[in-house]
Amino acid sequence: MTTVSLEHIESPADLRSLDRHELEELANQLREFVLNSVSKTGGHLSSNLGTVELTIALHYVFNTPEDPIVWDVGHQSYPHKILTGRREAMGQLRQLGGISGFPKRSESPYDAFGTAHSSTSISAALGMAVAARNKGLDRQHVAVIGDGAMTAGMAFEALNNAGVTPGVNMLVVLNDNDMSISPPVGALNHYFARLLSGRFYAAAKNMGRAVLQHVPPVLELARRFEGHAKGFVASPATLFEELGFNYVGPIDGHDLDALIPTLENLRSLGGLQFLHVVTRKGQGYKLAEADPVLYHGPGKFDPSVGIQKPSTPPRQTFTQVFGRWLCDMADHDSRLVGITPAMREGSGMVEFHKRFPQRYFDVGIAEQHAVTFAAGLACDGMKPVVAIYSTFLQRAYDQLIHDVALQNLDVTFALDRAGLVGADGATHAGNYDIAFLRCVPNMVVATPSDENEARLLLTTCYQHEGPAAVRYPRGAGRGAPVEAGFETVPLGKGRILRQGRRIAIVGFGTLVPAALEAAENLDATVADMRFVKPLDTELLDELARSHDAIVTVEEAALMGGAGSAVLEHFSERGVAVPVLQLGLPDRFIDHGEQGALLRSVGLDAQGIERSIAARFPAPATQKEGKVASSLGE
Amino acid sequence: MTTVSLEHIESPADLRSLDRHELEELANQLREFVLNSVSKTGGHLSSNLGTVELTIALHYVFNTPEDPIVWDVGHQSYPHKILTGRREAMGQLRQLGGISGFPKRSESPYDAFGTAHSSTSISAALGMAVAARNKGLDRQHVAVIGDGAMTAGMAFEALNNAGVTPGVNMLVVLNDNDMSISPPVGALNHYFARLLSGRFYAAAKNMGRAVLQHVPPVLELARRFEGHAKGFVASPATLFEELGFNYVGPIDGHDLDALIPTLENLRSLGGLQFLHVVTRKGQGYKLAEADPVLYHGPGKFDPSVGIQKPSTPPRQTFTQVFGRWLCDMADHDSRLVGITPAMREGSGMVEFHKRFPQRYFDVGIAEQHAVTFAAGLACDGMKPVVAIYSTFLQRAYDQLIHDVALQNLDVTFALDRAGLVGADGATHAGNYDIAFLRCVPNMVVATPSDENEARLLLTTCYQHEGPAAVRYPRGAGRGAPVEAGFETVPLGKGRILRQGRRIAIVGFGTLVPAALEAAENLDATVADMRFVKPLDTELLDELARSHDAIVTVEEAALMGGAGSAVLEHFSERGVAVPVLQLGLPDRFIDHGEQGALLRSVGLDAQGIERSIAARFPAPATQKEGKVASSLGE
Repeated sequence: MTTVSLEHIESPADLRSLDRHELEELANQLREFVLNSVSKTGGHLSSNLGTVELTIALHYVFNTPEDPIVWDVGHQSYPHKILTGRREAMGQLRQLGGISGFPKRSESPYDAFGTAHSSTSISAALGMAVAARNKGLDRQHVAVIGDGAMTAGMAFEALNNAGVTPGVNMLVVLNDNDMSISPPVGALNHYFARLLSGRFYAAAKNMGRAVLQHVPPVLELARRFEGHAKGFVASPATLFEELGFNYVGPIDGHDLDALIPTLENLRSLGGLQFLHVVTRKGQGYKLAEADPVLYHGPGKFDPSVGIQKPSTPPRQTFTQVFGRWLCDMADHDSRLVGITPAMREGSGMVEFHKRFPQRYFDVGIAEQHAVTFAAGLACDGMKPVVAIYSTFLQRAYDQLIHDVALQNLDVTFALDRAGLVGADGATHAGNYDIAFLRCVPNMVVATPSDENEARLLLTTCYQHEGPAAVRYPRGAGRGAPVEAGFETVPLGKGRILRQGRRIAIVGFGTLVPAALEAAENLDATVADMRFVKPLDTELLDELARSHDAIVTVEEAALMGGAGSAVLEHFSERGVAVPVLQLGLPDRFIDHGEQGALLRSVGLDAQGIERSIAARFPAPATQKEGKVASSLGE
Repeated sequence: MTTVSLEHIESPADLRSLDRHELEELANQLREFVLNSVSKTGGHLSSNLGTVELTIALHYVFNTPEDPIVWDVGHQSYPHKILTGRREAMGQLRQLGGISGFPKRSESPYDAFGTAHSSTSISAALGMAVAARNKGLDRQHVAVIGDGAMTAGMAFEALNNAGVTPGVNMLVVLNDNDMSISPPVGALNHYFARLLSGRFYAAAKNMGRAVLQHVPPVLELARRFEGHAKGFVASPATLFEELGFNYVGPIDGHDLDALIPTLENLRSLGGLQFLHVVTRKGQGYKLAEADPVLYHGPGKFDPSVGIQKPSTPPRQTFTQVFGRWLCDMADHDSRLVGITPAMREGSGMVEFHKRFPQRYFDVGIAEQHAVTFAAGLACDGMKPVVAIYSTFLQRAYDQLIHDVALQNLDVTFALDRAGLVGADGATHAGNYDIAFLRCVPNMVVATPSDENEARLLLTTCYQHEGPAAVRYPRGAGRGAPVEAGFETVPLGKGRILRQGRRIAIVGFGTLVPAALEAAENLDATVADMRFVKPLDTELLDELARSHDAIVTVEEAALMGGAGSAVLEHFSERGVAVPVLQLGLPDRFIDHGEQGALLRSVGLDAQGIERSIAARFPAPATQKEGKVASSLGE
């Protein structure tokens, strides 16, 4: 008799060769591996501790990769990565050149679909299921989706479409774990809680086994929800059955004796199946069970001690600057309301929620609704602030155009995570916002260059009566002290930070400090433009008159970005000054440390200096130097 | 006793002063007015004939405009416009300077929220309801939404959020009329049909009156749906009750005796109410009842005769070119699948649906799902073509970036209604696609200049293994004969159409014919660039070398558009040729005839010529003339 060892699992085929009774031991080893690995690299923890058994069961029962598994969001896919040949690669997780923190098609054939943004899995799995149907392939398709992700409209759209698509095999696994963290934010979560409290015992019994003795903790959690279950009447058809699925569950997602036979049944049934699985974030690591939010996405830590508070407080992040400003402004102006699509912590709104519960709206993972809801509020004299990651605003682009900008409604967008986001990689990059926002009439687009500017521009855009977006990056800035109060700056006006000669660098956003550094050796002028739109055309004209060349700097896609706005202006006026655009190149940029990523695309101070010197080399004699550009070549 | 007359209704206050028994007569007059009015101006007909009684009942019961009514989509708001002071303005409906075909805040205080794109009403009404709650106002808020619009994820997001929002008054009126046109495309529509067939009698009885004798036609329709109702079990809680609403209905939406007391009850109840109303598109006009699709959005016609087939067939539209290409290519390549978000007719896919039912997917009003579903199909060797209006692709922008482009999946986007769309106005304008698409890595963006080019570029983009979009406008082009077959052109290469001198016009899309006309007097060179991305930089460099100035022409937002791509290229190469960008200005452009709108922004041939002549006046002597630009001013 062999002793099972995670080290011998190089692929799901190895897993499937194990005896059923060996899987619990494998789960223990896998859980320990996840914990040790994440504590060394940082990354997502709680969600991955919660999917250990589910992952084992899915790969044990389904014929992966022929049967594709699509992991919604995908931050819970570490056990999947470990079991599919990437155990050792976990040491380089989310690092430059290492594996991604999300499923990625180019990384492994087991990563059937790249995910990261929420609620795409059912749509993608349905596409694969239809492809199989049309090709006559007999296989299964699995989408694993969390209860939070299920609240997004897109997931509903996919269920609605699946329910009338004949001849497809698709299993939707609802990984219901929200009950252990924040209170549910949508009516659907209440519904899940009712299903859970009303059906758990019956479902367990249907499985034909004594689930009770194996899973007291989950049951305990279920009991906590009985408060939500008031008025609950056992319904003969769940919502998912109404939409055409066969609903099974809830079952305990940490119990392989429940998971494996159920999945085997569902696999052989085929068609549209919906399995409601209950798991606990952080399962098996007491500290994470107790505080799954703290352990949601930790940095490095010692698992035997847990996450320790740093002895010196870290530098203030832009998110914190926003959070403070939001509370201060809410104190000052009772019309302010704050909206987040399920990003209370990430957007710095915990304090605001606590202090202004009537004016705080977590609408769930529902970006489209968030923006039009804000428009509705603005119609009636409220002043909504939508706090949203740049990358997630892509989900509400139409609503921003059609509902906010077209009606010129007074909505302020606080765009966090603009530019490169680091470890989360290309899926989360906030690179496109300048291009997709500035083409929209009525929009104001502001790009603060440091923390204090962030506050100034938030106030300015908030006071402006009309739609406005303030974009700021992930993490801390240069450490600028932030002045209290509600000072504003003139809309659409920039400022000169350094007066130099020959070359004028016009910066948009948080690369301005790097531009200033680069300007030293070049003796270049540096302007902080503050706004992409309206553009300070007077300042640009003045700089063009008094300099030989202009350099635009931004942490955003070059194509259509702020630099292009500068080009458009000069072109319109017929100003023939040479312009060098510095920004993000036209390719997706993988994960890595933010500073390293910026260096890799030449957007650190040295890179900026190098690019300028290469394009506009200093004249042989510095006296009365003229730019030796490649003009007219 | 007065005789009721529509002519005396200048506002809902006048309506509310009528006796209850006078409303039927008013409804008759209103229906006749709608029919006569639309037959003279063109516009939406079937949907407005369906909302006559509902509109009267809502304004009779609710205290508009203090109680806001939000009309989802809003093409059914003509009766509302007529009753709210715009009866005479209906003569200029959708015409330049006339009133909009959709609710518009700037037009009337009764238009609480501007709509046109689907499924925004619940979000907006919830925003208003929260504003009222926070301001302590005691009023009601109504969202009127169709069963099609209810399938969009955004509507679900709003319901989900509303269900946990305490202290708000909101009535959602589900205007269920889809049963009279295309077969329902989503599981939710089946669900509505089940509700209808299972509950209609009971609901009517609950209203305490003999609804049966008044509404045989609707009941007849209900009976048709009993086929869908297999396996229906009377559920104790509807889906909407699960989400926190009080569900009432279905009731007959053409019966004021059902509508008024029900609405009065719901108004006094307050809180979250959901009323399921059944109406018939085209109600009261036999021809429209019989063919509501034909009468959905007719041009002018004689109501006594109905819509007549034109004696000479109209010119082929780009939509038709696409529809034919799609069928031809599907014949040729079995991997092709076609996807539409509820726009089968508008996107020219009727024939494709008929011929390739297994490869045709109408996913409902679900743009987000449509695109990620396509991505899933592409993962498994299908070649999906997503047919979508430019303005609706805004709804799936994140999915295009995150699910398609980032994974470099082989999805072709056929973007109809690019540029100005005419009578539908600013809400439907496809002006931003070039800016929001070209900043996305991996994307190919093609701009055919005529019908034949549309087919060439569709084939080229389809054959290209990667994401690509082909944008073409509403309506017919210059009438170019379309060659059959599957010829392709080199990716990212343009062509010179006219060799002139001094000035080179580089055109992107269907303004190229106008540019050619403009070029005659100017003796300018004209290039059809074909692609915005990849850009034909060789051709641009050659044109810059051999000409004194470049003019870019596109029917798209100037900011970040194709002209900016040209500027970026010249700037990068240090080419100092003066460039004039012609395109759409940075403001929302209202409805009107397409040609008139283009003229109004100087994008007809004369306007293009005028702009070029003004910026680059011909030199005093034509010989060896140099451009007298404002270079370096």
